[in-house]
Amino acid sequence: MNDRNTERMVFLEREIEHWDRRTDVLVIGLGCAGACAALEAAATGVDVLALERASAGGGTSALSGGVLYMGGGTAVQKTAGFDDSPEEMWKYLLYASGPGPDEAKVQAFCEGSLEHFAWIVQQGVEFKPVFYPHYSGEPPNDDGLVYSGNENAWPYNEVARPAPRGHVPRIDGAAGGLLMRTLLSRVEDAGIQVLGDALCEGLVQRDDGSIAGAVARIGGECVSIGASGGVVVTTGGFINNDEMLALHAPLLKRCTFRVGAEGDDGSGIRMGMAVGASTLHLGMGSISLPVHPPKSVSKGLLFNRAGQRFINEDVYMGLLGEHVLFRQDGEAYLLFDDANFVRPEIERDLVAVGDTPAELEAELGIPPGALEGTLAYYNRNAKRGEDPLFHKGPDYLVPLETPPFGVFDCRVDHSFFAAFTLGGLRSNEKSQVLSGSGEPIPGLYAAGRATSGIAAPGYSSGLSLGDGSFFGRRAGREAALRRA
Amino acid sequence: MNDRNTERMVFLEREIEHWDRRTDVLVIGLGCAGACAALEAAATGVDVLALERASAGGGTSALSGGVLYMGGGTAVQKTAGFDDSPEEMWKYLLYASGPGPDEAKVQAFCEGSLEHFAWIVQQGVEFKPVFYPHYSGEPPNDDGLVYSGNENAWPYNEVARPAPRGHVPRIDGAAGGLLMRTLLSRVEDAGIQVLGDALCEGLVQRDDGSIAGAVARIGGECVSIGASGGVVVTTGGFINNDEMLALHAPLLKRCTFRVGAEGDDGSGIRMGMAVGASTLHLGMGSISLPVHPPKSVSKGLLFNRAGQRFINEDVYMGLLGEHVLFRQDGEAYLLFDDANFVRPEIERDLVAVGDTPAELEAELGIPPGALEGTLAYYNRNAKRGEDPLFHKGPDYLVPLETPPFGVFDCRVDHSFFAAFTLGGLRSNEKSQVLSGSGEPIPGLYAAGRATSGIAAPGYSSGLSLGDGSFFGRRAGREAALRRA
Repeated sequence: MNDRNTERMVFLEREIEHWDRRTDVLVIGLGCAGACAALEAAATGVDVLALERASAGGGTSALSGGVLYMGGGTAVQKTAGFDDSPEEMWKYLLYASGPGPDEAKVQAFCEGSLEHFAWIVQQGVEFKPVFYPHYSGEPPNDDGLVYSGNENAWPYNEVARPAPRGHVPRIDGAAGGLLMRTLLSRVEDAGIQVLGDALCEGLVQRDDGSIAGAVARIGGECVSIGASGGVVVTTGGFINNDEMLALHAPLLKRCTFRVGAEGDDGSGIRMGMAVGASTLHLGMGSISLPVHPPKSVSKGLLFNRAGQRFINEDVYMGLLGEHVLFRQDGEAYLLFDDANFVRPEIERDLVAVGDTPAELEAELGIPPGALEGTLAYYNRNAKRGEDPLFHKGPDYLVPLETPPFGVFDCRVDHSFFAAFTLGGLRSNEKSQVLSGSGEPIPGLYAAGRATSGIAAPGYSSGLSLGDGSFFGRRAGREAALRRA
Repeated sequence: MNDRNTERMVFLEREIEHWDRRTDVLVIGLGCAGACAALEAAATGVDVLALERASAGGGTSALSGGVLYMGGGTAVQKTAGFDDSPEEMWKYLLYASGPGPDEAKVQAFCEGSLEHFAWIVQQGVEFKPVFYPHYSGEPPNDDGLVYSGNENAWPYNEVARPAPRGHVPRIDGAAGGLLMRTLLSRVEDAGIQVLGDALCEGLVQRDDGSIAGAVARIGGECVSIGASGGVVVTTGGFINNDEMLALHAPLLKRCTFRVGAEGDDGSGIRMGMAVGASTLHLGMGSISLPVHPPKSVSKGLLFNRAGQRFINEDVYMGLLGEHVLFRQDGEAYLLFDDANFVRPEIERDLVAVGDTPAELEAELGIPPGALEGTLAYYNRNAKRGEDPLFHKGPDYLVPLETPPFGVFDCRVDHSFFAAFTLGGLRSNEKSQVLSGSGEPIPGLYAAGRATSGIAAPGYSSGLSLGDGSFFGRRAGREAALRRA
């Protein structure tokens, strides 16, 4: 077929002389969301075809830490000794995923989490039911449960009963790889056809606005593929598209490390826009500022360029990064005294050392007396076991009084920050993609980071694989049912 | 014609059996941007039709303070004694309109500002060449020049030579009304047909993606209008659409006062999205926290709920509002001592009075000692004429030591904040509307708050009428030229 409309990223059905291929459900992008969409569609008995621009499936999911945000009282949570419920999970996520959380999505995600956990396990993904307590985020061993957000930090711990919900597949590190090997193996078992090196160039739209299929470049040829049930877009975010970042999320460009496979260039988001889809929260991102591990780093004091504290130091690295980048102009520092000195495992420059706060201020260009006042106030209260400003947890609240003092660099332009995008196509709780007027575009579904998911802003780790797998399944199922 | 596609907000040209009306340039929405688009198109000799959903033109522009952001050395600036240049204007706007300013738009806007000023004057808009010094924003008299941004506040005053660029039409108050009466009178003189009570329901798109016209409901009837040159969307922002706010800019919903005519419901933005247009910065807004006038309010001390200062108190009310809403969770307070006490002209509750900071802390629920430390540090430096944290200007830097102290409420949920949206369709410096892949959608133009303009974030007052009129003219001209 001709390809004159590739710049527009949309083709009209009438332009398609004949479909080079036909299927019931066409999945574009075979990461975690795409694999789950394909599996769930295939389970209904329809024909499923998955396209992957790389030579094989996996995508960013395979490169990730493999954390899946699930809860409500899973077997893993129970065995590890945690009491969780769908309602507590909902309270946390609704509070954390704001402002402006998608209440319908959060509700569906929490109500369906136990069933989703069972389905994931059924696919062959194993979790060791042991809690890893030493810090939040992916454990260095095969423990299966971690805090992956702010559940146990103030004020979140007052809003909902804390429970860890980061479920990590059983392997020593690189759990994302294991997760994807397992899911892709199920895709193969299910007889789902996967075409690699297949780059989708645009959706095919009917006169009534519905989606009839897609056009892809496969092995140098332009191939039209009709999809009687629908097309599921699971192409990932756009952290590797400089132009889209500059337009929509310029601050994310400042982060030194971009979390994403090469194909995370927003192609699916742009294809969706070309057929009239709405986007949401394109400026948002997950910004990790990993000062932990070790967790004892939380005993330090974080301050901004005015020498002020601005957050409890024991919050999750995602919230910390978001605050520093979006609220503190990307500038923060982390102070220890000699008695509590600890080096963050992920290397960070020691930018100032001195026997007094005044020496540190001079070295850092912080206004004289500003840090001194901050530290004095902090110590005065810490001695009483209080942090009246930000309510840091008691395990980490110690006075910092023993010289010399050392300061680590937490500035975005000078130290390690990791980012990926959280904005994308607007989809509803059925994974239907919505137009600007809020109506579903018939035949178009999406999940994973091609969409704006559960949290943007207010990210907790595991939500991308979590909502990607959850709403990926829904996308596959809805597209399959539509074919009937 | 039929109207089955109104939910989609897009019609296909082939569905249009015949055009009920034809014109060369169709302008949708007759505020400042629309009037300027219509005038410039008509000046080329083509046929122009303007639709306005209200009974007559004016829109939000007519309700506004009438400030037009122009500079580079206008006659008004010169006579009032200010030295400005396109380059200084460019330096300021590029720095202020970030992160991620649209450099091409800023450049065009600054390079063309002198010509644009001359054109505005040529339309019959008069400016008294007198600078109003007493505060920033619309003057209470007929003075024609004001600071309407952060040009003279730190750090902006170090980036570019400060010059006021807010040009205000000559009338005592309600200058926006005068501006629009003048422009609409020129529209009438030019023989441009205006249809009131005409609500546009969607754009008409050809198979190749270009825009052929629009469909409007006029007097209860669905009317198709062909536009050989193009359609110019100047429908305003979406501050009066609760659903769009909740989705895209939820924090703006917390602002007590919404700046916008009833029709600012984002209809043009949604129509654009329906034909594949990209949007930009939908989460951004102009957030005014008008603690001035009088300007002497800047002698007070602004603090957050942790009792910390967070900004120089002499910044423009737009930057202040943006910081409080987006960075301080909407919570701020303004403190005076007895010697410098002044009441903001726009009423604000006095929420605490006390002889010591400790009393204020107790009344406000601020952590004990936090405000005390902040005030002591501020006073110590102010006595030396220094504000090392935020560099407030010397005119307002006085110690606050004379009890009793009073604190005004500057919390978004409890006091006056004014907001309108700054995000919208993505357009380029020619006012062409761009698709998700960055290509112009042929025949579609937009300007004013239906687009994301010069500043989002980083708003200075007068930029909406400023970029609306400037890029409105470009939209009209480009559409007219395309007809040839």
